[in-house]
Amino acid sequence: MLHFSVKDMDAMHHLYRINLINSCSGYKSANLIGTKSSKGISNVAIFSSVTHMGSDPALLGFFLRPTTVIRNTYDNIKETGYFTINHVHESILEDAHHTSAKYDSAISEFDVTHLEEDYKNGFSAPFVKHSPVQMAMTYVEEYPIKENGTVLLVGAIKDLYIQDNLLENDGFINLSEAKVVSINGLDGYALPKLKARLEYQRPKDLSSIKI
Amino acid sequence: MLHFSVKDMDAMHHLYRINLINSCSGYKSANLIGTKSSKGISNVAIFSSVTHMGSDPALLGFFLRPTTVIRNTYDNIKETGYFTINHVHESILEDAHHTSAKYDSAISEFDVTHLEEDYKNGFSAPFVKHSPVQMAMTYVEEYPIKENGTVLLVGAIKDLYIQDNLLENDGFINLSEAKVVSINGLDGYALPKLKARLEYQRPKDLSSIKI
Repeated sequence: MLHFSVKDMDAMHHLYRINLINSCSGYKSANLIGTKSSKGISNVAIFSSVTHMGSDPALLGFFLRPTTVIRNTYDNIKETGYFTINHVHESILEDAHHTSAKYDSAISEFDVTHLEEDYKNGFSAPFVKHSPVQMAMTYVEEYPIKENGTVLLVGAIKDLYIQDNLLENDGFINLSEAKVVSINGLDGYALPKLKARLEYQRPKDLSSIKI
Repeated sequence: MLHFSVKDMDAMHHLYRINLINSCSGYKSANLIGTKSSKGISNVAIFSSVTHMGSDPALLGFFLRPTTVIRNTYDNIKETGYFTINHVHESILEDAHHTSAKYDSAISEFDVTHLEEDYKNGFSAPFVKHSPVQMAMTYVEEYPIKENGTVLLVGAIKDLYIQDNLLENDGFINLSEAKVVSINGLDGYALPKLKARLEYQRPKDLSSIKI
């Protein structure tokens, strides 16, 4: 196996390091976060760090750098308290990736891509039309990460919208059926195919084990 | 689209709710976290919340409930300061999933599965042999999440081991080539196939845009 120590990482070109460290956590979620500023300008940006934090209450979190690239998303959430999370699927992949470009806050990414904003049930932040899983989120809390100046932003799911054919009898959402993508590193997009759902695991009878 | 409000979620059977809310964040990483107790008993457990937090310093975080299921992992990390993160790939999938069973802390999951522990470069926590991406991690900090009693545990990457054929010229680790899996919900395992790496995005020339 190839081996990189901390010393090796510290000596790397920063772009090489960014690719390497962004790839090494495993596959990431691919989500578009939609917001609207207090001036009424909508924003949509791709994030790869949206993570399940708990089911009851239903909480999702994601990491951002409030002072750099994705300032619009952070500012809009802090101003309004609302945002949406929308899954990236195969047919909007290139436009979704383009939202990583750094536009001024006066520009809506909905105006410079084919992504379409959608509004539902009086929620003020824009959803991404045709996204197979869409959530209306309210701001709950932020946890500043002192080690690197990022912020863990925690939101609560208020409404969940799911494309009709994806929901199975026990509440499982079949993301593979929806052609939802997954992110490898900074810029790699992969299409997962569901292999199996495995059963709930209980300890084996240890008296009978010979491994 | 199907629509679930907070009220709908609150009225659901808890198993339905767990499946639903665990599926709605998108694809998750699939990692085995290896630890060793101060008494020398090794432990390995599957986690789906390992998330990239930053490249410099190289930090990964994951969420856990210190007082329930995955107590062994948490206790061992707090006792020793060390753990490993190992990617789950297709051929160890079922054993990896079995580590979610609740064994007593006196039992090592390495003894009740075909997963093999491996030790390298004097690091005290066990790696998972044959895992295509393996990391030696040191404990950095924990952030208690007051909304639901979970903890965000932050670790620093000290050593990174990568199967020889996976690393591309710019530092990108090709997880698809390694047959690393991704998790959908609580119990769905999907095998992603890399579709494309997309270019770094800059804003479009707005004077020429007609969308």
